[in-house]
Amino acid sequence: MRPSSIEQSILYPIANPGSIAFFGASNNISAMGTTILRCILSMGHKGSMKYQGEIYPVHPREETVQGIKAFQNVADLPVIPDLAFIVLPTTIVAETLDACGQRGIRHAVIVSAGFNEVGGEGKDLQEELTAVAEKHGIRYLGPNCIGVINTQMNLNATFLPYEADRGFIGMASQSGSFITQISPHLSRQGMGFSTGFSIGNEASIDIVDCMEYLGACPRTRVIALYIESIRRGRAFIDAARAIVPEKPIVAFYVGGSDEGRRAGFSHTGALAGPDSLYDGVFRQSGVIRATSIEELFDFCYCLGASPPVRGNRVIVQTHSGGPGAAAADACGRSGLTLPNLSPATLESLKPYVPHTGSVANPVDLTFTKNPLDFFQAIPQILMSDENADGLLVYFLATARMIEVALKAMGVPDDETGKKAEEIIGLQADAIAALKEHSCKPIVGYSFLARKESSLIRGLQDRGVPVLPSPERGARAMGALVKYKNLKGKLTTE
Amino acid sequence: MRPSSIEQSILYPIANPGSIAFFGASNNISAMGTTILRCILSMGHKGSMKYQGEIYPVHPREETVQGIKAFQNVADLPVIPDLAFIVLPTTIVAETLDACGQRGIRHAVIVSAGFNEVGGEGKDLQEELTAVAEKHGIRYLGPNCIGVINTQMNLNATFLPYEADRGFIGMASQSGSFITQISPHLSRQGMGFSTGFSIGNEASIDIVDCMEYLGACPRTRVIALYIESIRRGRAFIDAARAIVPEKPIVAFYVGGSDEGRRAGFSHTGALAGPDSLYDGVFRQSGVIRATSIEELFDFCYCLGASPPVRGNRVIVQTHSGGPGAAAADACGRSGLTLPNLSPATLESLKPYVPHTGSVANPVDLTFTKNPLDFFQAIPQILMSDENADGLLVYFLATARMIEVALKAMGVPDDETGKKAEEIIGLQADAIAALKEHSCKPIVGYSFLARKESSLIRGLQDRGVPVLPSPERGARAMGALVKYKNLKGKLTTE
Repeated sequence: MRPSSIEQSILYPIANPGSIAFFGASNNISAMGTTILRCILSMGHKGSMKYQGEIYPVHPREETVQGIKAFQNVADLPVIPDLAFIVLPTTIVAETLDACGQRGIRHAVIVSAGFNEVGGEGKDLQEELTAVAEKHGIRYLGPNCIGVINTQMNLNATFLPYEADRGFIGMASQSGSFITQISPHLSRQGMGFSTGFSIGNEASIDIVDCMEYLGACPRTRVIALYIESIRRGRAFIDAARAIVPEKPIVAFYVGGSDEGRRAGFSHTGALAGPDSLYDGVFRQSGVIRATSIEELFDFCYCLGASPPVRGNRVIVQTHSGGPGAAAADACGRSGLTLPNLSPATLESLKPYVPHTGSVANPVDLTFTKNPLDFFQAIPQILMSDENADGLLVYFLATARMIEVALKAMGVPDDETGKKAEEIIGLQADAIAALKEHSCKPIVGYSFLARKESSLIRGLQDRGVPVLPSPERGARAMGALVKYKNLKGKLTTE
Repeated sequence: MRPSSIEQSILYPIANPGSIAFFGASNNISAMGTTILRCILSMGHKGSMKYQGEIYPVHPREETVQGIKAFQNVADLPVIPDLAFIVLPTTIVAETLDACGQRGIRHAVIVSAGFNEVGGEGKDLQEELTAVAEKHGIRYLGPNCIGVINTQMNLNATFLPYEADRGFIGMASQSGSFITQISPHLSRQGMGFSTGFSIGNEASIDIVDCMEYLGACPRTRVIALYIESIRRGRAFIDAARAIVPEKPIVAFYVGGSDEGRRAGFSHTGALAGPDSLYDGVFRQSGVIRATSIEELFDFCYCLGASPPVRGNRVIVQTHSGGPGAAAADACGRSGLTLPNLSPATLESLKPYVPHTGSVANPVDLTFTKNPLDFFQAIPQILMSDENADGLLVYFLATARMIEVALKAMGVPDDETGKKAEEIIGLQADAIAALKEHSCKPIVGYSFLARKESSLIRGLQDRGVPVLPSPERGARAMGALVKYKNLKGKLTTE
């Protein structure tokens, strides 16, 4: 029953609700439900954009909740809301869901915990939930989840502010933390979610359903999965194989070690399998496996930002030997090769490279020539080399170098800062245009962060991914090649 | 000829010069020499501390250089400087060094490139340099290096500003970049260099000499090495084995892949060997190998900040399942185990953990109890467990949670911010004191950065290392255990 369009997905009303019945918010601001409601109301999206749907708090006693008219019972609501959002004590969740069903609601998010993941009586309570949901034909996220983010809707139905931009990463996570607590990390690289689902115990909607939704979502260019265990192995493989030819899927799986397995079990009650089993599933599925949460997002970032790569031959451009060598070594360990430059490329480079530089690959320009060539003439020459499938570029503290160059050219001191920023904007334009026209991936790396460098920010804002170290840049470039190979295998099988 | 004290080291006058003769600076601000001189003059250390030694620019024509009286010839200098710093065109370096020798100078840093690393004539020029140095008994760093940083002296003799604090990491690097360009990265975690040497082509002073200096340096708690190749294998092993029982050494080696080896060769002309060879050397030496530049500094950071660990049994404390499971899995992959909590610990924890939490290890507190217990009562109980050799703690957006708790307690809105900061300071104090008194390592991890969170900053400033992801925290904890094992092996052999 794969949805043929995103609107047909059982997750559509959950990620795009026009109206929400909210259970568990009050005027006690330290309650979890209140916190989530306040996030929906005030922190829809960075830059104070707000969720535009209707919200109907349901509360047994309060007239208003956080300034919004409240209703004593869901039966009293003036409309049938698209979604019930439930943050209530464990024992009253089932009866609340039943009341929602009677009112005609067919979709829910159940944040409340204390079900399967705690065992014993919690299992009985989850079974009761399932029975109620089936009776009414309700599909729901959770229980024991943390909510949903849809940046396009300005909907942040979680308990922490979303601090990143709108992005192209669609995520389904068996931990709410990687939906709610990761936005500072995403923001630091200029990344962001299109949509994020915290899926909790997966009693009704599971990771496969989320993959299918994200596969159909036009704003999602790449799918990120955090997995402690896959419950429907066959369905996972089928769904992934249908999606991967269109968009990449990256998974971070933590159940592969004894320690990870035990931790996952006490987290969501899921039983994990050994690494080898999951490696097999991912290989069959065409899913790229990441080895850490940072790598998960590094890979997604570069996959979503890059055109398809044609092969594994990478040119490393640097003006510092160490970051070049470290990138080269990491390329070697990530399935990439560094081809020799073609004779035509060597000839074209001659005017630009000083005698202390190197035109081997890595192309190490050192520092003695015009810093501006670094962004225009040189990468253009390198990218037109027939041996180059992609470019990995090290970016240094350019603003300062350009300012010094301007001062040396006689530009008055009080104008160099502004002039340098203009030049940096043009350089970032040049790199972004080169990526566009060459149809080859460019991945940057730098020890400078977005907040510290207008060049890094400028590149990232123009769609050129820049990662914080040579190894992370190289591995992400390796993931592009992995995706090419996985996709190729799936489509020729 | 190992130095018995740091003052006897041939590197002492290079890292602690009372006076410097500077060659290659001028009033052209875009020249590399000028840039370095300006770094010495204006950017000795973050917070505008300045190098206090004497500087004697030598320039054939200028009366003053960057506002300092210049001398036409080194022979004219009023004193014999401790150090000659040379940033001149390749072909005049040897004659300049000769003039320095005649004036009685016995130590130099040669930044100029174009020697062995470019092959051909460059090799001849480097041989000439060696002959001149030997004639006068001069020892020097370089050529093809980028200089030296000694934060204690407020000496930043490199071409970029040093943007981190004084720290305990002593580094010797076969790439200048990892001395000059890494400070934004160090700063982001509250790390810093004690001393950093860029060693270039190692014509006179090599990585072994630097290790010996750093081994004797009282402000260096851990030694970081960036290696493209080791020239004196036996001496390296001997030096490391003498140091490791006293302080840890971490090495990042990039020559192990074909791509890394080729890149290193064109960078400094060094011939690298396969991974297996270097793994053997590091094992024999008691040196911990890092697999990336980030890991090099992560390991150094935690090794330098932590008391010796007694075993590999780690308790993971979290209030979010995913970051706990990811840390647990990474622990399992880093040689660590997660012991069960003892019955006494379980009993003591009872009042603090809600029913949705877990007292398995990871200890997952979830969110429903008093957030302040997270920093005092709970870690204290965990650290006194006889099964715990160390604690790995996940830190979330605490400031906001504390503010909400304060508001709920009736603290007026305009006072919650200040009050929350006070509480955070006390919490950071509590964690730091616990680390101190328990004599067991505590490593934190968080997706929040120092600049975004006063808790993270507070912890780091009090000597509690906090890393940016669960895996990096776990791997660094693993490095502590690796060090214990390597040291144990060396001292019992």
